[in-house]
Amino acid sequence: MLSFRPLLRSSCFSRTFAATKPHTFLTPTIGILGGGQLGLMLLQAAIDWNLRIHVLDPDADAPCRTLCTQFTTGSLTDYDTVYQFGQSVDVLTIEIERVNVDALEALEREGKRVYPQPSVIRTIQDKRLQKQFYREHNLPTADFILTADRADTARHGDFLPAFHKLGRDGYDGRGVQRIATSADFDKAFAAPGLLEKAVDFEKELAVIVARNERGEVQTFPTVEMVFHPELNLVEYLFAPAEITSDVDQQAQTIARQTADAFGIVGILAVEMFLDKQGQVLINEVAPRPHNSGHHTIQANVTSQFEQHWRAILNYPLGDTTFYQPAAMLNLLGEAGHTGPAEYEGLENLLAMPGVFPFFYGKAITKPFRKMGHVTVMDADMNTLREKVDRVKTNIRVISATGESAEG
Amino acid sequence: MLSFRPLLRSSCFSRTFAATKPHTFLTPTIGILGGGQLGLMLLQAAIDWNLRIHVLDPDADAPCRTLCTQFTTGSLTDYDTVYQFGQSVDVLTIEIERVNVDALEALEREGKRVYPQPSVIRTIQDKRLQKQFYREHNLPTADFILTADRADTARHGDFLPAFHKLGRDGYDGRGVQRIATSADFDKAFAAPGLLEKAVDFEKELAVIVARNERGEVQTFPTVEMVFHPELNLVEYLFAPAEITSDVDQQAQTIARQTADAFGIVGILAVEMFLDKQGQVLINEVAPRPHNSGHHTIQANVTSQFEQHWRAILNYPLGDTTFYQPAAMLNLLGEAGHTGPAEYEGLENLLAMPGVFPFFYGKAITKPFRKMGHVTVMDADMNTLREKVDRVKTNIRVISATGESAEG
Repeated sequence: MLSFRPLLRSSCFSRTFAATKPHTFLTPTIGILGGGQLGLMLLQAAIDWNLRIHVLDPDADAPCRTLCTQFTTGSLTDYDTVYQFGQSVDVLTIEIERVNVDALEALEREGKRVYPQPSVIRTIQDKRLQKQFYREHNLPTADFILTADRADTARHGDFLPAFHKLGRDGYDGRGVQRIATSADFDKAFAAPGLLEKAVDFEKELAVIVARNERGEVQTFPTVEMVFHPELNLVEYLFAPAEITSDVDQQAQTIARQTADAFGIVGILAVEMFLDKQGQVLINEVAPRPHNSGHHTIQANVTSQFEQHWRAILNYPLGDTTFYQPAAMLNLLGEAGHTGPAEYEGLENLLAMPGVFPFFYGKAITKPFRKMGHVTVMDADMNTLREKVDRVKTNIRVISATGESAEG
Repeated sequence: MLSFRPLLRSSCFSRTFAATKPHTFLTPTIGILGGGQLGLMLLQAAIDWNLRIHVLDPDADAPCRTLCTQFTTGSLTDYDTVYQFGQSVDVLTIEIERVNVDALEALEREGKRVYPQPSVIRTIQDKRLQKQFYREHNLPTADFILTADRADTARHGDFLPAFHKLGRDGYDGRGVQRIATSADFDKAFAAPGLLEKAVDFEKELAVIVARNERGEVQTFPTVEMVFHPELNLVEYLFAPAEITSDVDQQAQTIARQTADAFGIVGILAVEMFLDKQGQVLINEVAPRPHNSGHHTIQANVTSQFEQHWRAILNYPLGDTTFYQPAAMLNLLGEAGHTGPAEYEGLENLLAMPGVFPFFYGKAITKPFRKMGHVTVMDADMNTLREKVDRVKTNIRVISATGESAEG
């Protein structure tokens, strides 16, 4: 669908570009599996290029519902639904990896452009395959043992402390259990999983990397994530990470090597540990735009969302330089509040320069539900940290109807 | 609709903001009259805050059609259509000033929040009223004479060289005629208009200013516009303008004073001449986001579009600082091409760092139709100018079916 045309007036093209064929932009129809906040931000970035986009999501009230060319309500894990949806578009992508990969493989076999490729999604969907992939490709990652069930897991008391991870269907902190001593083995999952050596880490890092069809690879600057102590969700992040250039080099190299190893077309978010010995290890990856790159909308020349479009439409990848240091805080639903969402303190936020709230349009707030995020920017890192503290204490996602539950 | 709630947990608010009441964000339903490219960019900015927006436009294929909560096809100049549309929303705004002001005034009388106010739109719709407004408020503008018809106009041979401007319904270069000598009087308009002394200008400048309900006023940095020699359309602009600080001060002050004089709530774009004597004069204003502020999407902390939402929703106005110097080029349909639009050279553009094309989603290109724009950024002004030249020679909006007309 992205056709090339002969050069019409070669004289008006400058010498610098004379060697490149001019590209005529004929918009293909793009499909996104998933209509949540990542889809929403992909749609927002797509407005600049007037992309025609269909979205599939099981929730008729999904954030993307009113912002795409066509919205279909349906299961992302049902073969027929995904297959039929895929038939209606030219290029198919995802904003969530829990999708029916069999349908995607069938579409790919029929010549549909499915990016990221189904094989990549299949490997990443299963943490067991994912970890084996790193081992096979000599990508540094914490040591692990595959486990069949709880009893099998409990045989590895000498491997503790460790994390037991469910092979499939874990997300956003679910599907991970810390096993500190043998007494914790009753918390291990009953299904196939893996036991991963606990890394005594200094920091958690992430690098978003993009790779297009021609194999061009481009990384975003390394960021530093601070996780919520209980929820295993990113609470906030700083970009760029405050790390040595050696550590940064390791993180950037690992991200590139991982993208190349997968041969992915699209965005890959690579989450990593920096251990106490200064070594960087892959934790896990996501084959799509990621929470660790939301700040790029404001802070970087190209956002992770535009970069994803560039990658899957096989355009040159964009410049990832940042204008200013940035931080990102997730806006989680307040504990004790379930019901129609209200944003308390928004006015205070909007009075602070370089503070950018983003609400996902979820009508109902629940405790710790991701309701939005706030990007904060400042040329000075200390001022940035002060602003982050002020933002944290100045906004709450609450529900008037749910408030009684708190008191 | 934007309600305030009592402070629930005062202890968690930092001292800096303790004096401010926390604001609970309950989204009002907003209506936009007009669904063109300015509406499109308003919708894009509105995604961050999850604003609920209805759009009215006569064209069922208007750029906004798939990106708003509700799209209504209907006339912007018909009383009943505008009045009924206004009834369906809480806050009403415009992206084009040729709308039925009587209907807006009726809605305002009934307590609807209509921003910019109908009185402002009424004055600006008629260039005669607009110029008299500047005179009454001691705002510097070129000398002028009101004219009733062509014969009346022809009586003012001693006022030449001048421009004859149609009072109402001129736009984008239409409704303006240069009258160099008495021989040109046959080009004067037959309808009520005004004869304005030609300003021998050095540069054309623009300042976008925002004013909210509480009367806070915030300007964007002064930009410099270069008009197409024949079309009277902005061909490109540079931000910030290369002017002395005295001239900048004049331009910024005039913009503020004009916003205050109108008492406008919303964005006001103030176009000005810098004459050869170093004096700044108002040319004309637009009470809405404007072509001279598209670069603010990428180049400034707050874009003109977000600033418009802040102003009409009565939020604190945003920081207008720019990250890097920027330029903006309008993408006009190529001469000799009418038909389905294609963008030749897009690939080249996307390979240049800091170059941001934006396409308005108009299916059909026509000679000189505004089809999109390109924002260009660079920390260095000379490199910026080089990039602008490369962009100009690397993209054309053409139509394969219309090509025969050219050759």
